[in-house]
Amino acid sequence: MKRIEALRHLAFEKKGFDGFLITDEANLFYFTGFPGAACLLIPKTGKGIIYVYGVNYEQAKAEGKAFKVELVKYGENLLDKIVAQVRALKINKLAVDAVSVENYRGLARRLRGKAKLKIQTGMVWELRKVKDEEELKLMRKAAELTSEGMKTAYEVVKPGIKEYEVAAEIEYAMRRRGSWGTSFDTIVASGVRSAFPHGGCTERKIRKGDLVVVDIGAVYKHYCSDMTRTMVAGKPSEKQKKIYEIVRKAQEKAFEATKPKAKAKDLDAIARKVIDDAGYGEYFVHSLGHGVGLEIHEQPRLSRESKDKLTAGNVVTIEPGIYIVGFGGIRIEDTILVRKRGAEKLTKGPYTLETT
Amino acid sequence: MKRIEALRHLAFEKKGFDGFLITDEANLFYFTGFPGAACLLIPKTGKGIIYVYGVNYEQAKAEGKAFKVELVKYGENLLDKIVAQVRALKINKLAVDAVSVENYRGLARRLRGKAKLKIQTGMVWELRKVKDEEELKLMRKAAELTSEGMKTAYEVVKPGIKEYEVAAEIEYAMRRRGSWGTSFDTIVASGVRSAFPHGGCTERKIRKGDLVVVDIGAVYKHYCSDMTRTMVAGKPSEKQKKIYEIVRKAQEKAFEATKPKAKAKDLDAIARKVIDDAGYGEYFVHSLGHGVGLEIHEQPRLSRESKDKLTAGNVVTIEPGIYIVGFGGIRIEDTILVRKRGAEKLTKGPYTLETT
Repeated sequence: MKRIEALRHLAFEKKGFDGFLITDEANLFYFTGFPGAACLLIPKTGKGIIYVYGVNYEQAKAEGKAFKVELVKYGENLLDKIVAQVRALKINKLAVDAVSVENYRGLARRLRGKAKLKIQTGMVWELRKVKDEEELKLMRKAAELTSEGMKTAYEVVKPGIKEYEVAAEIEYAMRRRGSWGTSFDTIVASGVRSAFPHGGCTERKIRKGDLVVVDIGAVYKHYCSDMTRTMVAGKPSEKQKKIYEIVRKAQEKAFEATKPKAKAKDLDAIARKVIDDAGYGEYFVHSLGHGVGLEIHEQPRLSRESKDKLTAGNVVTIEPGIYIVGFGGIRIEDTILVRKRGAEKLTKGPYTLETT
Repeated sequence: MKRIEALRHLAFEKKGFDGFLITDEANLFYFTGFPGAACLLIPKTGKGIIYVYGVNYEQAKAEGKAFKVELVKYGENLLDKIVAQVRALKINKLAVDAVSVENYRGLARRLRGKAKLKIQTGMVWELRKVKDEEELKLMRKAAELTSEGMKTAYEVVKPGIKEYEVAAEIEYAMRRRGSWGTSFDTIVASGVRSAFPHGGCTERKIRKGDLVVVDIGAVYKHYCSDMTRTMVAGKPSEKQKKIYEIVRKAQEKAFEATKPKAKAKDLDAIARKVIDDAGYGEYFVHSLGHGVGLEIHEQPRLSRESKDKLTAGNVVTIEPGIYIVGFGGIRIEDTILVRKRGAEKLTKGPYTLETT
């Protein structure tokens, strides 16, 4: 409820809207606390109205007690129902978080002459990017499970094991400790494939001396986490160690600068400078990091283009990398909470190329 | 390449377009054969042009050899680059598969007076809903892995185990045999929660006599599968057995009627009639099934509203269910291939409430 009140403050008091339609899946979970609503109409005062199809109706009634739950019956049109409600509530200026081109046109046509419709994706992000205590509890747990998964990775990566077999062991380790799933498809990218930041996980057998990029994330009660370590199957070479140290230093420097009011683009610049100065700038082919929460890629973005400033309660990744075709890739990533003073790593694991 | 030629035939020869912009992630994989392209511009003749950000550039060059690969550099705008190319290729009528309201507006504004822009989601679905031999090979493997996972479910479900622990064992069984992940969040919904079709998987401990709905899907090389069985922890009651038989019969009757030219809505009606006739019609709260492929929910839809007719090469689920609040839920689902004559179950498992 506090979240809905906060949105009302932003949208209604500050921006003059008198209704907010939420349709994005993660936003719906954020405001309703359960999955399965088709959309949520927030009026200026009173209970929010959840629209739900038959398949989720009983669950919505059981778990959405703070809302009015409207069943969208067989043969009924969701947009028609919403517009009838908008008129009944005399809403004049309706914000909507995100819709497809088709639904936007459908809504705008039905509302013509009755209410103004405006897409407002930013307001919900203003709220979602600052995690509350309840969210942080779940994100800490997700990060803890992820750290356990990474411990398993360090134990099982060795010459002869296949990439997907490593993933099986990691995911099992997280799952049986209580993980609800993975934040994204687990990456175990080895050898030449480690040079592809989004290399996924194949049937490739890991060979002696291969770099292995392991990028994983457990989900706990809908909240994500994200962590990468790079290790070597066997004994690391001098060149591997040298490049690892550059990436590690880049991550550390960016982490040390992470605190409220820091500019996101400055953090990216700090990490990029370490890598540039070492002569590998052209191989750091992505941005420094991204927000994490109900989704794996959220605001704020830690990139050269970012206009974000950090605030306490942001949870972001810091994940510099160097990727050289033919040689391989090295990335180091943690999920990090911005605190009132400085920052705290939620994921925890060793910074070493050597497996255990 | 055959897929691109098929789209050219549909869009260019039959509908008069002279360019097609693909932006949807699954569509991009379907046409390019690798993940990570930001978009694909298909001109009337010659190579398709893949646009890719730095993070995926090297992978795109390695895996997208049949295409021209364009790097979207730091500071460049993707829409600007596409529009410049549309003009250079003298494209007059550009189809686009799916875009956000913002990107549609951005594209339309840039193309104004130069080319017509039209959203065409249906054409790619016409192709994707008929699986080719290569796709079927992968889908058979995905279904085989899923069937192994279900075998594990029948082995581990018993009083005292938690829902997420069951999920851990199932996913591990699929993963170590080669699964690339799960098609959706595994559902292990027990007891009162089994009455929620999308009940997910929690920390609830399974009790003696509980109905347990297990809905799972392995992914193999990007292709999904989907299977549900319902079992009882302990000895099933007479009422549980009676309702199970109704659902089983509904699934069987719909399966027997599955063949080319069958109307999707007729299959839904066949299953619904079995359940209606038994007096449980109001508890079958969802539609009969959906297409499966690169995504878990595809065309054709097997529902009362569906206008689809089946054709050989469709892969669909058939998944009737009865959900009674207080009592619990029972669903039975297989992934089914429509063949030239009749149909074939790709997922295989017992039809019984009794665990092993």
